[in-house]
Amino acid sequence: MSRELKARLLNELESIVLIDPHTHINPHSAASKTLADILGYHYYTELAHSAGLARAQIEEPDLAPKEKVRRLVEWLKPLENTIQSSWLLEMCREFFDFDSDRLTPANWEGLYESASAKMAAHNWEEQVLDKSRLEKVFLTNDFDDRLAGFDTSRYVPCLRTDDLVFNLARPAVRQRLAKATGIEAGSAAWLTTAVGRLFEHFTARGARACAISLPPDFEPQSVPAEAVDPILKAIDAGREPSADESRTLARFVFWTLAEHCLEYHLPFDLMIGVNRRVYENGVFQGQDLFDQRTSLVQYRRLFNAFPQVTFPISVLAQTSNQELVSHSWIFPNVVTNGHWWYSNIPAYIELDCRSRLQAVPATKQIGYYSDMYKLEFALPKFRMYRRILASVLAEDFVIARNWSESRALELGQMVLRGNVERIFGLAG
Amino acid sequence: MSRELKARLLNELESIVLIDPHTHINPHSAASKTLADILGYHYYTELAHSAGLARAQIEEPDLAPKEKVRRLVEWLKPLENTIQSSWLLEMCREFFDFDSDRLTPANWEGLYESASAKMAAHNWEEQVLDKSRLEKVFLTNDFDDRLAGFDTSRYVPCLRTDDLVFNLARPAVRQRLAKATGIEAGSAAWLTTAVGRLFEHFTARGARACAISLPPDFEPQSVPAEAVDPILKAIDAGREPSADESRTLARFVFWTLAEHCLEYHLPFDLMIGVNRRVYENGVFQGQDLFDQRTSLVQYRRLFNAFPQVTFPISVLAQTSNQELVSHSWIFPNVVTNGHWWYSNIPAYIELDCRSRLQAVPATKQIGYYSDMYKLEFALPKFRMYRRILASVLAEDFVIARNWSESRALELGQMVLRGNVERIFGLAG
Amino acid sequence: MSRELKARLLNELESIVLIDPHTHINPHSAASKTLADILGYHYYTELAHSAGLARAQIEEPDLAPKEKVRRLVEWLKPLENTIQSSWLLEMCREFFDFDSDRLTPANWEGLYESASAKMAAHNWEEQVLDKSRLEKVFLTNDFDDRLAGFDTSRYVPCLRTDDLVFNLARPAVRQRLAKATGIEAGSAAWLTTAVGRLFEHFTARGARACAISLPPDFEPQSVPAEAVDPILKAIDAGREPSADESRTLARFVFWTLAEHCLEYHLPFDLMIGVNRRVYENGVFQGQDLFDQRTSLVQYRRLFNAFPQVTFPISVLAQTSNQELVSHSWIFPNVVTNGHWWYSNIPAYIELDCRSRLQAVPATKQIGYYSDMYKLEFALPKFRMYRRILASVLAEDFVIARNWSESRALELGQMVLRGNVERIFGLAG
Repeated sequence: MSRELKARLLNELESIVLIDPHTHINPHSAASKTLADILGYHYYTELAHSAGLARAQIEEPDLAPKEKVRRLVEWLKPLENTIQSSWLLEMCREFFDFDSDRLTPANWEGLYESASAKMAAHNWEEQVLDKSRLEKVFLTNDFDDRLAGFDTSRYVPCLRTDDLVFNLARPAVRQRLAKATGIEAGSAAWLTTAVGRLFEHFTARGARACAISLPPDFEPQSVPAEAVDPILKAIDAGREPSADESRTLARFVFWTLAEHCLEYHLPFDLMIGVNRRVYENGVFQGQDLFDQRTSLVQYRRLFNAFPQVTFPISVLAQTSNQELVSHSWIFPNVVTNGHWWYSNIPAYIELDCRSRLQAVPATKQIGYYSDMYKLEFALPKFRMYRRILASVLAEDFVIARNWSESRALELGQMVLRGNVERIFGLAG
Repeated sequence: MSRELKARLLNELESIVLIDPHTHINPHSAASKTLADILGYHYYTELAHSAGLARAQIEEPDLAPKEKVRRLVEWLKPLENTIQSSWLLEMCREFFDFDSDRLTPANWEGLYESASAKMAAHNWEEQVLDKSRLEKVFLTNDFDDRLAGFDTSRYVPCLRTDDLVFNLARPAVRQRLAKATGIEAGSAAWLTTAVGRLFEHFTARGARACAISLPPDFEPQSVPAEAVDPILKAIDAGREPSADESRTLARFVFWTLAEHCLEYHLPFDLMIGVNRRVYENGVFQGQDLFDQRTSLVQYRRLFNAFPQVTFPISVLAQTSNQELVSHSWIFPNVVTNGHWWYSNIPAYIELDCRSRLQAVPATKQIGYYSDMYKLEFALPKFRMYRRILASVLAEDFVIARNWSESRALELGQMVLRGNVERIFGLAG
Repeated sequence: MSRELKARLLNELESIVLIDPHTHINPHSAASKTLADILGYHYYTELAHSAGLARAQIEEPDLAPKEKVRRLVEWLKPLENTIQSSWLLEMCREFFDFDSDRLTPANWEGLYESASAKMAAHNWEEQVLDKSRLEKVFLTNDFDDRLAGFDTSRYVPCLRTDDLVFNLARPAVRQRLAKATGIEAGSAAWLTTAVGRLFEHFTARGARACAISLPPDFEPQSVPAEAVDPILKAIDAGREPSADESRTLARFVFWTLAEHCLEYHLPFDLMIGVNRRVYENGVFQGQDLFDQRTSLVQYRRLFNAFPQVTFPISVLAQTSNQELVSHSWIFPNVVTNGHWWYSNIPAYIELDCRSRLQAVPATKQIGYYSDMYKLEFALPKFRMYRRILASVLAEDFVIARNWSESRALELGQMVLRGNVERIFGLAG
C-alpha cells in the first residue's frame, strides 16, 4: 500500500512545472552540445579522478569532446554505485533513448553519436526545457555581467558576489568593478556607490536574487566606513592586506550588499560553509571541501539587523541542517533553501527534508534547486528530490498524520514551486 | 504485519500511567482556562511570528484571550505541516470533541466556546490528568518559590538554578536569594550556606531534582572560594563583573550546586546547549537558539568529581546525541533524558531513540518529558513519543532481534516510566 | 517482498569469505579459552560498570575466570537492549549451542562449562575461523613486536604507532625503540633511521598497514628536523617537554611515518577522534571518549603531501561521517574504513553505509572490520554489518534504482572483501 501511495504522489509531483532557483547555466549556451558537456560536469570528473583517473588526462589543452568522453567512460565502472551515476543513466535514457543500464567502453560510442545528433536539433534547448517541465531558470551572474542577449524572463539573472566580498584586493576584480560601474572604488563611500550601480543594473535587467557562498568561519557584522578607507587606500597603493584587513573589508562589502538587498527588495541567498582549494591538485571545480565546525549563530547580527531582507540559506554540512531548521523556525527572515552539493545525496536529503517539513512553516521552504551547469541535469536531479519528497509526504503526512493525498500534494506543490514564485517575487 | 505489530505495541504503551519528569506547569493553575492558554504556547507564537504574524499583534497589553486566539488562528495555515500543529489538532480532538482536521478562521470560534465550557468544569484539571494517564508532574521552580499551596506529591518540586548560576550579579537576584534564605551572600562561604538553605527548603517540600539549562560554551570546574570572594565583594560594591569574573562565579555556584546534589541525594538535570536572546525581537520565549559547536567532554571534570550524583542530560543540538549516548555508556552517573526543544521532532527523536536503545543500558534512559506549560500538552507530546517508541521496539527488537512483544514492552515500560520512578526516587 | 529480498541478499553476503582488516587479536592466543575471554571484552565490562557493577569487582587481582563471569552475568539484564548484548547471545548460540534468549544468573553456569569444553578442542581456533568464514585477520602490533611464532599469512601484521607519535617522551618508549632498532633516537635524523628500521622489520614480516589512533585536535604538518633536535635533546636530558614541544614532536614522528608508508608502500590507517582517559576511574579500556568538534580539514596538508599513500580513515564521531564521505569523494588517496567503536551501532552504521554507497566510488570503501580481541567476535559483528548492508543494497539499489540482485551483490562483495584485498595488496 505504501509503495502504491508513493508512486501516486510521485506521479502528481512530476507534473508540477518548475522554476529552478539556483543554477550555473550559461544562457547563451544553456543545453549540451555533446556528451562531453554532460560527462564534463565536475561531479563526474572529480569522482573519476578520485577513483584513479589522472587529472592531466581530462584537462589536457584542446582535448576533443569525444576523446574526453572516451577517457571518462573508462572510469565510470567504479562510480556506478554513486547517485551521480544514476543521474547520468537517467539523462541518457530520457533524452537519448539509451536502453542499457550501464555506460561502458563497449557501448558509449553509439550513445555519443546519437546524443550529438539529438543535440544538434535547432530547438534542443526547448526540447529539454519541455521534457523537464522547466519554466524559469535562475542564473549565477558575475557582478560585471552585461546581462544582454538572452531572455531574462526565462533565464532569471542573479547577482553573485563572492568576488566582491572576498577578492576585492585583486587588481583584476577592482578593474572589472570600475569598468562595470564607471567608479574607482577607492573609499568606502565610492565602493558603496559602485555596489548601488550593480544593483541598479541587475534589477533593471530582472535580477531576482543576490547570492554568495561563504567559508565556515565567516561571521558578518557591521563595519564603519572609517575602518575601511585606509584598507582600500593601502590596496590601491599595491600593498597586500593583512588577514585582519581582509576580514574587515569582506565584512564591510557583505554588509553593504545586505543593505542594498533591503533597498532593492532582493532576497540574499547565503550558501554557507565551503572551504576553497583544499585539494590543490584536484580537477577543475573539484578542489573544495568544508569544515563542519560552523554555526548559523555566526549570522545572528545579520538576521537581527535586516528583518526585511529574506535570506534563503543553504548549508554545505549536513550537520548544519538542524541549525537551519531552528533558525528558520525562529527568524521570520530565514528560509531553508535546497540541498547543497555534498549534502545533495538521498541519505541526507531524506533526513533534512523530513526535519524541515516537521518544524519549519510550509511557506518558508524552498525544496530544491539543481545547481546545474547544463539544462539536461534538472530532470534527474529534481526527480531524485521528488522521489524523496513523495516518500516523506506518504510516510509522515498521509500515513502518520492521516492527511488526504491532495492535501499532501498541496504541501509538495508549495515546497517545489509555490514558494519559489512568492519568495523571489515571480508571481504575476 | 509490521504495521499491525506497531499498532499493538502502541496500544500497550498507551496504557502506561506516566510521571512527567520535566515541565513548566504552574501548580496553582495547571490546566488551561481558554484556548488562548494553548495557542499562546511559545511554539505556536514563534512559528506564527516566523510565518509573518507581527509580534505586537499577540503581545499587545491587555489583549483578550479570544482576540488573541483569533489573531493566531489566522496564521495557522502555513504551520499546518509542523508537528506542533499536529499536537494542537490532537488536543482539540481529544479534549474538546473537535472533529475537523484543520483549525481555521471559519471554524475556530465554535471550538473556542466549547473548549471554554469544558475548561470551566470544576474538575477540569483532574479530567485532563485522567485522560492523559498522568500521575505526577515535575515542576520548574524558581529558587525562591515558597512551594506552598499545592499537592507536592502530584506536582513534584524541582529546583531550577539558572538565575543563581548565571545572573547572581543582578541585584534583583541577590535580593531574592537574601529574602528566601535570610542570608546576604557576600562571600563564597555565605553563598554556599545560602545554597544549602535552598536545598533544605526544597527537599523538605519534596523536591526530586535540581535543574539548569546551560550555554554551549559552559565548562564546569572547581573554583576555590578565595577566587570568588573578591568578585562577590565587587558586585556588592556595584561594579559590573568582567566576562572572566562572571565565568568564575558561574563555575563556583554550579559546582556548589553539584556538591549539594550529592549531600541531598538529588539528581542534577543538565539541559545543555542553549544560547539566550539570539533573536532579540522575537516573541516571548521565542528568542533562543543554539550553537552546535559544543561537547559533553566539557563536563568531564564534573562527571569524574561526582560519581555519586546522577546527571540526567538533555542536549539541544541533535548533533550532540551521539556524545550523550557514548557518555551514558561510559559514565555510570550519566543518564539520557528526553528530547529537548529543537530536537523534539520525530525525524530526530527516531534516530536518537534508536541509538540510545542500541547502546545505553536500559536502566539509564529517561525516555521523554513534555516540557509543557499547560497540562493538556502531555497527551499529544507523549503520544508522539510513544508512536516512535512503538515503531523502534517493533523494528529493532521484535523484528530485527526476534524479541517477544512482551519483552519489548518491558523495555518500553522501563524507558517511559520505570526509570523515572527509580532515578528520581519516587517508588514507594 | 522487500523482506524476502533482504533475506536473499543477506544469505549471499553471508557466504563471502572475509579478510578482517583491523583487529586486536593476539596471534599466540587468538580464540577464547573460557567465557571470561568473551565477557571480559571491554564493551561488556564498561556497560556493566555503567549500569552499576563496581570496577573492583571485575578488576580484582587473580580473579578466577568463572567467578568473573558470574559477577558480570549478574549485570547483564540492564544491558539486554544493547546491540553488544545481541552479539553475545549470537556467539553463545552459534558456537556453544546455547538455546535460551537470555543469559542469566540461573543459566550461565551450564553455558560456561559447555563453552569451556568446546574451547578446549585442539582445533578450536580453526573451528571458529571456519564457522566465521574468516581467511585472514589483521593484527595491531606494538612497534617492538618481534612478529615471530605465528603464521603471518593468516594473521597479518600491522604497525601500530600511537606510542611513537604521542608517547616518545616516556623513557620506557624510547628504551623499547632503542631495543627494537638498535638506535638511540637522540636526533631527528636518528629517529628517522629508527622508524625506517621498524618499517623494514614489519614489511619483511608481511605487514600490510601502518595504523594510529588520533585525538580530535591533531593537525598533522611537516616539521623541520632542526625544530625537533633540541626537543629530543631536552627529553634525553630528562626534561618534560612542553605542550608545544610535544605537539611538534608528534607532528614530526607522524609525518615521518607517512614518508615511510610512501617508501614501503603501506596504507596508513588513521582512526580519528579519540580522547584518552576522559573517565579516569573507568574500567580497563573503558575510559576513552571523544569530542565531536573535529574536522578532516585538519588533514589537508597530509592528503596533499602524500598523493601516493592510501589513507583508510575511520572516524569516531558519527557527525564526522559526511566529511569522510566528501573527502573520499574528492581526494584519490582517502578511503572510508569501517564503523569505529562508538559509531559501530546499527542506527549509525545504516546512515553511514547509505551515504558512502551513494557518494564514494565503490573501489574506495572498506565496509567493515571487527576491532575484536578474540576471534569469536567476528561472526556476530560482521553479521550485524551484513544485515545492514543487505538492507541498504535492497532498498537503495535493487528497489530504488532497479539494479539486479547479482549486480547489488557484486557491490556488496567489493565493499566486504574485494577492496580489502586490493587496497592492502593481498591479492595473489
